[in-house]
Amino acid sequence: MRILVLGGDGYLGWPTAIHLSAAGHDVAVSDNFVRRRYDEELGVESLTPIATLDERVSTWAELTGKTLKSYVGDLCDARFVHAMVADFRPETIVHFGQQRSAPYSMIDQAHAVYTQTNNVVGNLNLLYAIADIDRDIHLVKLGTMGEYGTPNIDIEEGWIEINHKGRSDRVMYPKRPGSFYHLSKVHDSHNIEFACRIWGLRATDLNQGVVYGVDTETTKLDPRLATRFDYDGVFGTVLNRMVIQAVLGYPLTVYGTGGQTRGLINLVDTVECIRISAESPADPGEFRVFNQFTEHMSVRQIADTIAADYPGPCTIEEIENPRVEAEQHYYKAAHTALVDLGLVPTLLSDTLIDHLFAVVEQHQDRVDQAAIMPTVRWRETSSELVRSK
Amino acid sequence: MRILVLGGDGYLGWPTAIHLSAAGHDVAVSDNFVRRRYDEELGVESLTPIATLDERVSTWAELTGKTLKSYVGDLCDARFVHAMVADFRPETIVHFGQQRSAPYSMIDQAHAVYTQTNNVVGNLNLLYAIADIDRDIHLVKLGTMGEYGTPNIDIEEGWIEINHKGRSDRVMYPKRPGSFYHLSKVHDSHNIEFACRIWGLRATDLNQGVVYGVDTETTKLDPRLATRFDYDGVFGTVLNRMVIQAVLGYPLTVYGTGGQTRGLINLVDTVECIRISAESPADPGEFRVFNQFTEHMSVRQIADTIAADYPGPCTIEEIENPRVEAEQHYYKAAHTALVDLGLVPTLLSDTLIDHLFAVVEQHQDRVDQAAIMPTVRWRETSSELVRSK
Repeated sequence: MRILVLGGDGYLGWPTAIHLSAAGHDVAVSDNFVRRRYDEELGVESLTPIATLDERVSTWAELTGKTLKSYVGDLCDARFVHAMVADFRPETIVHFGQQRSAPYSMIDQAHAVYTQTNNVVGNLNLLYAIADIDRDIHLVKLGTMGEYGTPNIDIEEGWIEINHKGRSDRVMYPKRPGSFYHLSKVHDSHNIEFACRIWGLRATDLNQGVVYGVDTETTKLDPRLATRFDYDGVFGTVLNRMVIQAVLGYPLTVYGTGGQTRGLINLVDTVECIRISAESPADPGEFRVFNQFTEHMSVRQIADTIAADYPGPCTIEEIENPRVEAEQHYYKAAHTALVDLGLVPTLLSDTLIDHLFAVVEQHQDRVDQAAIMPTVRWRETSSELVRSK
Repeated sequence: MRILVLGGDGYLGWPTAIHLSAAGHDVAVSDNFVRRRYDEELGVESLTPIATLDERVSTWAELTGKTLKSYVGDLCDARFVHAMVADFRPETIVHFGQQRSAPYSMIDQAHAVYTQTNNVVGNLNLLYAIADIDRDIHLVKLGTMGEYGTPNIDIEEGWIEINHKGRSDRVMYPKRPGSFYHLSKVHDSHNIEFACRIWGLRATDLNQGVVYGVDTETTKLDPRLATRFDYDGVFGTVLNRMVIQAVLGYPLTVYGTGGQTRGLINLVDTVECIRISAESPADPGEFRVFNQFTEHMSVRQIADTIAADYPGPCTIEEIENPRVEAEQHYYKAAHTALVDLGLVPTLLSDTLIDHLFAVVEQHQDRVDQAAIMPTVRWRETSSELVRSK
């Protein structure tokens, strides 16, 4: 199958691209490298040294004999998107190519506007390119479990049957997201559902949990195939960040009481979920939603798990929650669709977190300790035009 | 009360501004005149001749002694929005300043991206300006009944209590809008609800039905106070367009079978709804939604009403529906909140459509007959960079 991976230079996009290539698909990647520029802006870098996209692609060819075509450009440039889709003629497009940090979107007005514009416009351009060039292309779009918020009812997979005043309908699940980033994904979902309805496009919207881990079978083949590992307060996700805190001998920091429950997924399952979704496409006109996580835990439970696994001393500390969110809430979210299609989950309890500890130990001299703590506070705003540290 | 009306040069913004001024409020208006530029782009103009904003404002001062401050700028310019709000220090901001045509948003990729960017970014800038300058400002935001689509259950006012698997929650009403324009309003609603939640802003989201009519008590005072009247296939709304077809002796064109039901509201009620909403503000942190229409009718019923009222011969013709929408559907939508706050509806059956016929007759030499029929088709797309007629 011809698969185009957008954002193919990123934390998840790169491992997905080579996983799909290893599975026998004809894969191309696209990126504008803006994720590397966010690092420069924030003054941080990936814990793992990462090669350039060119080096990654040539390493992959050298090791496996498989070619990855690459397109460099911005999804907000409609001409670029159209020309790329017309040139590669994919059967599936996997869309990771978005700004994906909630704290980054909450830095200030400019970052909120950038996040929503970048994500929504890139996705719209993609929908138009598909509608113009080949309506049979299957769009596999990354969303987030954070779109749902924490409702007091069970979270279903994207759609819900509502009974109301003696009548019923199947409607899109009501969303109540927690940042301008999460909102951008909700906007995308609505736009995609509309495109399926009016143009007969086929789409799979993957509401992904918090991803942890740094390696897959394919990234482990060579250090030049390593993907990024973010631990900073803006782009680092909770479990990865806590592993670093443990290795450095810092307390694991929990936001507030840590009662917030999150869906989790191991990186090795993420790349499998994408393969499974691509190989079992949505029907023409279908807007299909899968909740892409394998287990859920409270932030406190994640900290406890890491503290228990870490061989050295390890403490847990509650800090003021920079976000506005419920710290105690009901949480029951369906996640059976991907398992029904063949996903075999890799649960945290089965994972060798030891391996993660080892990766961090290997690169711990690269950690900027000042970057770990959260700096972006949800309740504060700023329209300042010039920012300084 | 100090009220800032964004989009104050438009079809609804201008009559609202002088209605609020006449009611004793201290009113300022803002516009970037892009609505007049859409006319140039599409090669059409308002049926009613309209004065410039400067002429309107000076006429109003001449007739009433009341001053309207005016700000000229683009809401997508964050510095402009911030400076304006800081300068006028409104207690209420009424936000009409958006691209408001569904067909315009469906012309092609560029118009879809423009509509969503313009509307979402302008609204985000406004939320940030309010959060930065004065979180007590009440935002009165115009949305549309078209955000809901045509669900098979009753439409409530923005929120719905869902019972699901033995639990219940009050959630935002699930939306399924019918164009990239309608989608932009759904995106806005989600962004505003979030801003109320994290910053404690107070907002009223008005999901308005199809507006008809051309005059209010204040616009009738002088021809220089007239508001625009659009009849073209892109910006003309259904009832206004049919009145023109009747006067010109054309068949009233119904899209498809005409079974689509729409909420309707008279222009004189629109301006009253805004006054009522402003004078009874939402609570701090409250995201309040009102459905702003007074009655609903199928498109066929609207045509029948006009045909019955028109003194001359009048026929009705079904044409191919350019949109993708259900032509037969359940429709029951709540609209009691504004009545509870004091709105006295002006129903179509009580209205002197004769007056509308007279306005059209007076200006019928200005009608471009070629502009009446729909030209934008929902199922078609185009990424062409250059368009010609």
